[in-house]
Amino acid sequence: MSSIWGNKLKVSIFGESHGEAIGVVIDNLIPGIEIDTDYINRQMARRSPGKSQLSTSRTESDSFKILSGNFNNITTGAPLCAVIYNEDKKSKDYSNLRDTMRPGHSDYPAFIKYKGFNDYRGGGHFSGRITAPLLFAGALAMSILEKYKGIYIASHISSIYNVEDDKILLADCDDESLNYLKDMEFPVLSEKKGEHMRAEILKAKGNKDSVGGTVETVITGISAGYGEPFFDSVESRLSHMIFSIPAVKGIEFGAGFDITKMYGSSSNDTYLLRDEKISAKTNNNGGILGGITNGMPIVFRTAIKPTASISQAQETVNIVSMKNTTLQVEGRHDPCIVPRALPVIEGAAALVLLDLIMERDGVTLNNEK
Amino acid sequence: MSSIWGNKLKVSIFGESHGEAIGVVIDNLIPGIEIDTDYINRQMARRSPGKSQLSTSRTESDSFKILSGNFNNITTGAPLCAVIYNEDKKSKDYSNLRDTMRPGHSDYPAFIKYKGFNDYRGGGHFSGRITAPLLFAGALAMSILEKYKGIYIASHISSIYNVEDDKILLADCDDESLNYLKDMEFPVLSEKKGEHMRAEILKAKGNKDSVGGTVETVITGISAGYGEPFFDSVESRLSHMIFSIPAVKGIEFGAGFDITKMYGSSSNDTYLLRDEKISAKTNNNGGILGGITNGMPIVFRTAIKPTASISQAQETVNIVSMKNTTLQVEGRHDPCIVPRALPVIEGAAALVLLDLIMERDGVTLNNEK
Amino acid sequence: MSSIWGNKLKVSIFGESHGEAIGVVIDNLIPGIEIDTDYINRQMARRSPGKSQLSTSRTESDSFKILSGNFNNITTGAPLCAVIYNEDKKSKDYSNLRDTMRPGHSDYPAFIKYKGFNDYRGGGHFSGRITAPLLFAGALAMSILEKYKGIYIASHISSIYNVEDDKILLADCDDESLNYLKDMEFPVLSEKKGEHMRAEILKAKGNKDSVGGTVETVITGISAGYGEPFFDSVESRLSHMIFSIPAVKGIEFGAGFDITKMYGSSSNDTYLLRDEKISAKTNNNGGILGGITNGMPIVFRTAIKPTASISQAQETVNIVSMKNTTLQVEGRHDPCIVPRALPVIEGAAALVLLDLIMERDGVTLNNEK
Amino acid sequence: MSSIWGNKLKVSIFGESHGEAIGVVIDNLIPGIEIDTDYINRQMARRSPGKSQLSTSRTESDSFKILSGNFNNITTGAPLCAVIYNEDKKSKDYSNLRDTMRPGHSDYPAFIKYKGFNDYRGGGHFSGRITAPLLFAGALAMSILEKYKGIYIASHISSIYNVEDDKILLADCDDESLNYLKDMEFPVLSEKKGEHMRAEILKAKGNKDSVGGTVETVITGISAGYGEPFFDSVESRLSHMIFSIPAVKGIEFGAGFDITKMYGSSSNDTYLLRDEKISAKTNNNGGILGGITNGMPIVFRTAIKPTASISQAQETVNIVSMKNTTLQVEGRHDPCIVPRALPVIEGAAALVLLDLIMERDGVTLNNEK
Repeated sequence: MSSIWGNKLKVSIFGESHGEAIGVVIDNLIPGIEIDTDYINRQMARRSPGKSQLSTSRTESDSFKILSGNFNNITTGAPLCAVIYNEDKKSKDYSNLRDTMRPGHSDYPAFIKYKGFNDYRGGGHFSGRITAPLLFAGALAMSILEKYKGIYIASHISSIYNVEDDKILLADCDDESLNYLKDMEFPVLSEKKGEHMRAEILKAKGNKDSVGGTVETVITGISAGYGEPFFDSVESRLSHMIFSIPAVKGIEFGAGFDITKMYGSSSNDTYLLRDEKISAKTNNNGGILGGITNGMPIVFRTAIKPTASISQAQETVNIVSMKNTTLQVEGRHDPCIVPRALPVIEGAAALVLLDLIMERDGVTLNNEK
Repeated sequence: MSSIWGNKLKVSIFGESHGEAIGVVIDNLIPGIEIDTDYINRQMARRSPGKSQLSTSRTESDSFKILSGNFNNITTGAPLCAVIYNEDKKSKDYSNLRDTMRPGHSDYPAFIKYKGFNDYRGGGHFSGRITAPLLFAGALAMSILEKYKGIYIASHISSIYNVEDDKILLADCDDESLNYLKDMEFPVLSEKKGEHMRAEILKAKGNKDSVGGTVETVITGISAGYGEPFFDSVESRLSHMIFSIPAVKGIEFGAGFDITKMYGSSSNDTYLLRDEKISAKTNNNGGILGGITNGMPIVFRTAIKPTASISQAQETVNIVSMKNTTLQVEGRHDPCIVPRALPVIEGAAALVLLDLIMERDGVTLNNEK
Repeated sequence: MSSIWGNKLKVSIFGESHGEAIGVVIDNLIPGIEIDTDYINRQMARRSPGKSQLSTSRTESDSFKILSGNFNNITTGAPLCAVIYNEDKKSKDYSNLRDTMRPGHSDYPAFIKYKGFNDYRGGGHFSGRITAPLLFAGALAMSILEKYKGIYIASHISSIYNVEDDKILLADCDDESLNYLKDMEFPVLSEKKGEHMRAEILKAKGNKDSVGGTVETVITGISAGYGEPFFDSVESRLSHMIFSIPAVKGIEFGAGFDITKMYGSSSNDTYLLRDEKISAKTNNNGGILGGITNGMPIVFRTAIKPTASISQAQETVNIVSMKNTTLQVEGRHDPCIVPRALPVIEGAAALVLLDLIMERDGVTLNNEK
Repeated sequence: MSSIWGNKLKVSIFGESHGEAIGVVIDNLIPGIEIDTDYINRQMARRSPGKSQLSTSRTESDSFKILSGNFNNITTGAPLCAVIYNEDKKSKDYSNLRDTMRPGHSDYPAFIKYKGFNDYRGGGHFSGRITAPLLFAGALAMSILEKYKGIYIASHISSIYNVEDDKILLADCDDESLNYLKDMEFPVLSEKKGEHMRAEILKAKGNKDSVGGTVETVITGISAGYGEPFFDSVESRLSHMIFSIPAVKGIEFGAGFDITKMYGSSSNDTYLLRDEKISAKTNNNGGILGGITNGMPIVFRTAIKPTASISQAQETVNIVSMKNTTLQVEGRHDPCIVPRALPVIEGAAALVLLDLIMERDGVTLNNEK
């Protein structure tokens, strides 16, 4: 599949960091949906660089142009293509990278896979910039889930380096209760922990270094019965998508790796009736049992590695001369990619949810919550 | 997709815990492969129950019968169907479970998804028993990878409850060097830690409880250039498959969640020439960069939750009478599923690798390493 | 894909003419459907050989055994596997065919594709016998369409050799009005033409030869709006499936090839209101416009070539000795495959229709007509 | 799937007749291919309107712009997106068509499927104009097949209305021997028959009417062993694609419908050794047996209906007022779409062939003929 995703809803992304344009085609969209441009722009702005000293100073213009699939700003059901034309491209920055493989980047495996024909400028098609069209599609899906299905997706930065944010309590996961995180420039539960995290990022930046972190995502309002046993479990579908985002190295659902240190008598989420509805007292399984949603919030955490591009000198190999060499990556880098990855994770999850819903319920808006 | 998996190599599993038979259809197999029945039986025996006091006493007959796709024990290229007929099924054990939802199991979401028509006996199609045909396919794939591609997959139990095994060193990951783990009944690096782990399992069993753990898997011999950017990254493909295995709640590659606590200057795996081949000094990225293999061993850890079936009384709901109730699950349970899940993880990973290879190199055995 | 088919509903067929068993796995079936065994058996009996002197004397036992996916004869939603064990296999008949390529058969291309590893006995996986499990799936789909969606599929033998049956009039295509054809051993509109057709078949048989023919299929009760523009047009989906049936060499919809000899002013199916519903006066487009159903009956004709197996001596090549040779195919052959192919075509079309409906309307029985 | 096609090579088309742009994304292209812009332009010019009095006077600008996937005019292996911006759009011509359903067009089923939200201007996404990006992809595939695989695709207009061209003889189907047809404005074997065909088209045009016809396509140079039994037979794959082209109502392979009027002793293509290679004396099966290529040229004929848009008054229904009405379609129409459809058929077939080859041989150029 490579750059096409989806069972029923299909998303096809294209473009390179320094090519003509990057973009996305979304196929099988439900017709009759008003495209909430403001909503999409807000989500995309969260990913945009150059907002603060925490991110790269490259000012990418992420304004998209819709080429097809809408009519009077309403989806037609035909494939919707949106493109973002590349403007601020400084290709010269990358000319020395043609032969010298950046550690931690895709350069070397891409060189092998594409036999040297890949566009090496700024990582080419592997660039994190390609998450912009993915986010466009994701934000559109997210706006549909909110408006038509009562499903909300919210995330906080759960850790940066060794600083951890507070835990989200199950009691705080009702419908829109976490939506305020979307309005925060640096979305955390504890402002104090957030300050510590920012300090760690700036410290790394000062050292010409970078740091990673984790993002915790909560999806509320999804009812029981979505997903499949085995090969299309909700965990399978979500993890497949989340690992599509560059720099992700781990994912866990519910209690995740910590569940391995529990006893079954504690980890089992026992049921009880609440307001004549079946509910679970705990959510160690993160809203998914046997691969299928159980009506509890879906909770997952994503591990994001430190930005691979750093301005320090690093040992590597020149693949043409086949000699050991030292590389100092020039250009503008994010000291920490976590805050910008967060809305991409949300959008990516929204695409998975919408696809799961369309697979079970069909191509219709009638199945409102 | 649900119970069918694969891009080029296709695997379709079917069956229920207490139905007539469970089985698998493998499509697009390369023709001309001698089916190594001994190899497959050895791997399947590692998953079989009733071997020791660490696992359930149910003695499942996992002997498979191949119905198609082979001729004189050599693959023909036509779909290969293998079935395991169910024999030792005690359906009565499960009759009280029709209406009472077991905590930690798929019962409730399955009831909603299938509108009450699912086979509830022993979890039906959601039973861990369905991993037997998956393992059949996986073991076949694993034998092909070893014989024709020089790719070896090995795993150890990296933790049970709060007891952790020693770490695998990168220096120990050469080709077949970890193959000895396949011959161990309880595969660990440190026999002493292994003893502690066994003690924890028996302790949980004594308490009518269960425990979870983690499995670490290493894949050696895979060369650089397999996988895709974005939606079919190797991490995406592997995680999708691994989360298909019941009870898995987390996966991480390379340094995984710990990489989020590193600086970029440490986490980047710098390159150097070794024997005129490009190699990396470290393997924090677990053999995958930009979604593509970089020639280093693929390393991942899988989090497995405590067995959901325990013999203690648990609170739950009767979904027909819609009343709170208490449930004590009868029958034979594994106090810890980790040792039996381990060969399934290996086989599942083998299927992903073989599919990745066939997608790039085609349906041929000519691309031997 | 090869032996797996479907977008939402998935069908995986397996088996060889002289192997252990042939069978089918049907995935994503809607749960809660009573399996109408009588209906399925009736349709399968129409395909069974040995019924009359018009077909082969091989008495295949086509009695199927369901291994999974049903519980108390009701679909569970889990994959349904049905197998037919091979019994009356005379492998000796085919031993001389290992090296000598039968003209008109798959022998030669299969030998090349599978590098000689294919099961050559009776055509192996290429045998028309594999249409039995396909028909099982198709008959199940057909019974669902009839019972839950009010959709009926009926066919007549529209020609054998140069003898043509009467034309079906649009006025005769209401709901179940053509259902009587299913009860005929040799389904034709004109009994007289039918007699001529039978005579042609017996004449060919007497000459140790074979004849072909066409089948016309009408699908009533499908409402407007199913299908997709371009790559998943209803014609694309149906033709893809129908060409999966061995011996099919052509398909046409509505007026088909004859529409090329009409003027647009005649071929356009003009609309009019009838009982406050939109209808077309003619059906030259066979119920499909722009790839989407328009509410008129779907009509298509399938061209089936003469049985490739004939008892006359034929020139061919021995692929091992690489010498020209002469071959006389022994064994029991159908002088004409058309009557036995007819129910397979109906079932195959039913699978396509059910898949199209599930893709748009989801996995539910609530969208009854 | 709808607007995405392909197993290994993936093609995603988008756009509407009167939207911003139409385009295509091609995924999984082999890296390192020089994009032969001249070749592509030549093929696209054959489809362009306004060339002669035989086609519509709308002068579409079909000049494409490549947005991604190439670097220095060589494919990188990343998704290649090409767009054609719409320029000469006269939306006013179509304003009266919002509510009045054009007979023979997709208007009515599209209205139902998309619940009235489809872009009705010029047929929107259903417009024949969307075949331009499909042809871009197809011409690129065709240039790859020629240059790297020695596979040639050529077509002639085999009939217009009731005028038939001469037959292509098997002896004339060697490699590039039919390539001259690509340089003809009206590609036929017999110039005289071609004159009669043109006269029929102009006669229909004079009568404000339209005519249809057939196209015969020959593919040479494809070796034996490509394709699959059953669901991915070469006939299935080709017919699926060809029926994606608007106005196609039938397809037949080899002798096609005429094979139903032959005896098996004639229709079987007997083998003989020629230059130590296996060949068939005849080609009634059109190069495909058991769904797999047999090394003979692939031959198929496509039936194309008369242009649905005619300037005569036609009876139809106003779907909003739900009243019978009369419609006279204004605007610029082709009296016969066959000559412009021909290169689209060739390109579409090229995509299928390239996909079949990549599925078997992998993503490589090393398997040159």
